[in-house]
Amino acid sequence: MTAINLAEKLSSFTEHWSPRIIGRYNDNDIMVVKVEGEFVWHDHPETDDFFLCLAGSVDIELRDEVIHLDAGELYVVPAGVEHRPVARGEAHLLLIEPRGTPNTGDADTAVHKPEI
Amino acid sequence: MTAINLAEKLSSFTEHWSPRIIGRYNDNDIMVVKVEGEFVWHDHPETDDFFLCLAGSVDIELRDEVIHLDAGELYVVPAGVEHRPVARGEAHLLLIEPRGTPNTGDADTAVHKPEI
Repeated sequence: MTAINLAEKLSSFTEHWSPRIIGRYNDNDIMVVKVEGEFVWHDHPETDDFFLCLAGSVDIELRDEVIHLDAGELYVVPAGVEHRPVARGEAHLLLIEPRGTPNTGDADTAVHKPEI
Repeated sequence: MTAINLAEKLSSFTEHWSPRIIGRYNDNDIMVVKVEGEFVWHDHPETDDFFLCLAGSVDIELRDEVIHLDAGELYVVPAGVEHRPVARGEAHLLLIEPRGTPNTGDADTAVHKPEI
């Protein structure tokens, strides 16, 4: 058992919008992801969606407002609320979602989340 | 709905070992806490215990090893595993636990966790 170093995990890959699983908390995946540009609009009907900005900044666009996150800021998108993360430059995020949650809200388009 | 700024939340109180609830993720409380010195040995039989070190450093003592966390490092104590956080100087942590989890593992000695 060992500490999980976020910067070290983030330095091990370069792809955008491809979450890596770095740990587990009860039935949830703890992930880091690098993002840049626009993701797709989606929602997760069954679960809230935890975002903590670690570096850079990201807009969590909702249909009627925008939540701007700088490093050291977090936001939890409530279950069922449509959202689209948008990053003007590269941003690094810590994500928490129940194991098996599709990142796009849709199993057909979701990426595989490798453990690192 | 707004971003939750961790530094701002942490600047609003000074007490040690007194977690503040800053958000919710499904049935979990998201908390920040300032710690210094030794906490009590305890476990949470029903849940894992999420620690992310935001500033300073903390040792998560287990019965047979010590997990040292610097800022930017996280560790999840598995359910049922006895642990004792110990901080040589002041450290700031992000915690996630199911709502209502007693911080000492014992409802009789647990502190109230206010929302801020």
